[in-house]
Amino acid sequence: MNNQLLLDNLRCIPDWPIDGVNFRDITTLFKSPEALKEIADEMCDFYANKGITKIVGIESRGFVMSSAVAVKLGAGIVLCRKPGKLPCKTVQESYKKEYGIDTIEIHEDAINENDIILLHDDLLATGGTMLAACNLVKKFHPKKIYCNFIIELNSEFPKCRELFDEDIEITSLLKF
Amino acid sequence: MNNQLLLDNLRCIPDWPIDGVNFRDITTLFKSPEALKEIADEMCDFYANKGITKIVGIESRGFVMSSAVAVKLGAGIVLCRKPGKLPCKTVQESYKKEYGIDTIEIHEDAINENDIILLHDDLLATGGTMLAACNLVKKFHPKKIYCNFIIELNSEFPKCRELFDEDIEITSLLKF
Repeated sequence: MNNQLLLDNLRCIPDWPIDGVNFRDITTLFKSPEALKEIADEMCDFYANKGITKIVGIESRGFVMSSAVAVKLGAGIVLCRKPGKLPCKTVQESYKKEYGIDTIEIHEDAINENDIILLHDDLLATGGTMLAACNLVKKFHPKKIYCNFIIELNSEFPKCRELFDEDIEITSLLKF
Repeated sequence: MNNQLLLDNLRCIPDWPIDGVNFRDITTLFKSPEALKEIADEMCDFYANKGITKIVGIESRGFVMSSAVAVKLGAGIVLCRKPGKLPCKTVQESYKKEYGIDTIEIHEDAINENDIILLHDDLLATGGTMLAACNLVKKFHPKKIYCNFIIELNSEFPKCRELFDEDIEITSLLKF
């Protein structure tokens, strides 16, 4: 069951960014101190006993919740960014989008084999970016990878959860 | 005096992004659980009794620390973004950069006259973006505006603190 406090604070925008898309605007969740605390508390509850050592935030809305959860869990934060934004040597992953190829990258010394990783982004829609982020993080051979979203759109076809390996556990706070 | 824990975890990159620039890489601060917690604790200490109601994070490294501090202070988060990223009506501010004009924007219903605002970004260098963000936030007529940076470069000329109105209080965790 979806959390009513979060639902009450989520704004819905019809036909954005294109006609026919019913956009879920999480900025109104972030703006509310109560909703923001609820998101942080729920994420911390999900991952309290998993031994998470690093939270990988995906550029750029995935950066927002990373610190509240990382500080509470005693983890560090790693930034997963678009090319050219990270100043040191990186490991990259490219993936197909509707119109062309996108690339994401992580500093090559940001993750090691002892890490237990929580990948976080605001929204799971087609799953393309998160799948690429999973494949990118796998190149570092961490002990385990978890994925979390604030919002998961289950209306996508093919069901995007099916894109991910079975050993990657996915949680979401709100599902539509 | 600068905090030794933060200094120990800050990476310095000579000649990036251009020759002659000694780049301070905060990603190694975020990666360390101890340094990350120290940044959050110091920011919360600075602003514990100021009645902060909203933290405005500046895209995109300014998003990272916003949730740890906002949850602790009982505030909400507002995103200050580049054009085209926010789905509802926005208020904008444009400013001159070395090569051309940049614009930033905030949702028009994100801030009101009862708010006490903490503007946050990772780095104060020339001050152009933060000055524009201050001017943008002023259009909402909040009660008070504070500014915080993780790192402040005092070597810039003209001294960038002098660009800001005297009633805007600025704090930084590390100064070079």
